[in-house]
Amino acid sequence: MRKHLLPLTALLSATALTAQEKAAVPSPPEIVNAAPKADWVAIAPSDLMVMDLTPDTKGKPRRVVIQLMPAPFSEGWVSNIRKLAAARFWDGLSINRVQENYVVQWGDANGEDQAKARRLPDGLAVVPESAYELPVSRPAFCRSGDLAVCRQPGAINHDTINSRNGSMHDPYRGNDGFWRGWPVAAEMPTVSIIPGDRNEPSTVWPVHCYGMVGVGRDMPPNTGTGAELYTVIGHAPRHLDRNIALVGRVIEGIEHLSSLPRGTGALGFYETAEERTPIVSVRIGTEVNGLPAYEYLSTESASFARYADARANRRDAFFIRPAGGADVCNIPVPVRRVK
Amino acid sequence: MRKHLLPLTALLSATALTAQEKAAVPSPPEIVNAAPKADWVAIAPSDLMVMDLTPDTKGKPRRVVIQLMPAPFSEGWVSNIRKLAAARFWDGLSINRVQENYVVQWGDANGEDQAKARRLPDGLAVVPESAYELPVSRPAFCRSGDLAVCRQPGAINHDTINSRNGSMHDPYRGNDGFWRGWPVAAEMPTVSIIPGDRNEPSTVWPVHCYGMVGVGRDMPPNTGTGAELYTVIGHAPRHLDRNIALVGRVIEGIEHLSSLPRGTGALGFYETAEERTPIVSVRIGTEVNGLPAYEYLSTESASFARYADARANRRDAFFIRPAGGADVCNIPVPVRRVK
Repeated sequence: MRKHLLPLTALLSATALTAQEKAAVPSPPEIVNAAPKADWVAIAPSDLMVMDLTPDTKGKPRRVVIQLMPAPFSEGWVSNIRKLAAARFWDGLSINRVQENYVVQWGDANGEDQAKARRLPDGLAVVPESAYELPVSRPAFCRSGDLAVCRQPGAINHDTINSRNGSMHDPYRGNDGFWRGWPVAAEMPTVSIIPGDRNEPSTVWPVHCYGMVGVGRDMPPNTGTGAELYTVIGHAPRHLDRNIALVGRVIEGIEHLSSLPRGTGALGFYETAEERTPIVSVRIGTEVNGLPAYEYLSTESASFARYADARANRRDAFFIRPAGGADVCNIPVPVRRVK
Repeated sequence: MRKHLLPLTALLSATALTAQEKAAVPSPPEIVNAAPKADWVAIAPSDLMVMDLTPDTKGKPRRVVIQLMPAPFSEGWVSNIRKLAAARFWDGLSINRVQENYVVQWGDANGEDQAKARRLPDGLAVVPESAYELPVSRPAFCRSGDLAVCRQPGAINHDTINSRNGSMHDPYRGNDGFWRGWPVAAEMPTVSIIPGDRNEPSTVWPVHCYGMVGVGRDMPPNTGTGAELYTVIGHAPRHLDRNIALVGRVIEGIEHLSSLPRGTGALGFYETAEERTPIVSVRIGTEVNGLPAYEYLSTESASFARYADARANRRDAFFIRPAGGADVCNIPVPVRRVK
């Protein structure tokens, strides 16, 4: 039997593996599927944000589930977003922009028109530019060993992932890795090219991988409230790191955004109101009846270490050339509904 | 006036720049728009492949224009693809798979069923695994200085792009860069971490960036004919480099593929024939009446060097933190219709 499509099979699913592959080195999905329950971390419903769009042309519901970033990252913006959801700010607004290989953006299509713009709720914080990154000296970091880029023994960071080929640095900055389930990067106080070097990073920030959710802003870096949000639907636009706040990631239903028709206006904006997909409601998970429970694979777990290594060095049957490395955005953190 | 959406504006278009931005350091699009005609390279119609899908639900035509890779890359597969197009192999076949953040694949939905599979034209070459990469000793390389990764003076490669932060290596292999308009990577005979090191690469291969077109194959690496093709619609799956042949890239109309509904079957395959988008025809550009002329910005030009530097170090008005580097897939090669 010809299996035209097998080549891409082994990469993202264990469901279609052949006997030959099952007998080979485990694929990343096989490693994830075999991870013990203890390696999975529950996501609190209070850290979920559920955006329901109008049903599609066939009447199918379109629900997008977003996981908000945990403290200490982006706390000011996430707090604003909780206030906006509580105020039902987004209800009846729309998806206004879909730009190919870049972003989908939603919010108030009339936001630039003072007369028509929807009023923002009171009490939104003005978050300073300094919050785009966090000093590692902050107690939350490099203390318990849960920040991978702090290079604790067994931590998953750019070096441990890429050491096989001597690659020392994320092209974007000194080091990248994972922290409590999130892709992050860190700047080293002095850039070192010595293998095994153990400089501590000076600051850490979340990075713009596919599906990450960010905050649109005006030119001054403190003008993003959280009312205008976007998600990445293309190759990681890492140049946005530390220039725009990241507040979460889509963990389910991103296809309802990424498969929308591209806008034909500048930057992928829709040119007519009819093209915009209406947002029925945006709610924090605790307000949504019947919401499934979700969990992510601990990025500090042995299972994740094996998964990351397998993503960087595919040895399952299909592959003839393990890459010898991977970038942080090509090691998506596994998230699943709790069985 | 509030400009919620400006933050993402400056990144990808010169059309919406403010006066403040225009007065600032040129953005990548501004650099591209200002590139002299001499820095653009015409794409021969014989190197284009045009795939027309059935019109969309509103009756709008859906045309996808693919640029085939030039020799010496993937010559055997590209030759097969020309034979397949000449034989009208794809006419009446369909888009069979759309997998979120991964690939769109087209060809014969019955390809695995010997009784129903469309017959392949005679004379297709069996291309060996060795063709996935090319030795640099091949005369085409490192002779005229047109291979960036050969590090000729002024060549654009990973080091020249990322030298600002001391990043020496593509996480995937020793070096990456551009060659005659295409993103490529190279393996160094010995991995060096010494800045300014001038090791020559031993082999070079094209890489899986967004929009690149590749050849599906069975488990044996020489089984891909070119009849089953896919394009990348997500974060660069660089682990496929040298494991699957790359034969071109989509230069226009990729939104007609990337915005298709995701398949609900394993690996994003459509579960019913009705979900598949029919392919009306696939033709080489020389067979298409009224096809526009296209050109790409020479990756060996001074304009591209400025563009790549600007992509890696955004200094136009919106940015508060230049990234200090970029990965090869975040520096898309500019392609345009000839004015």
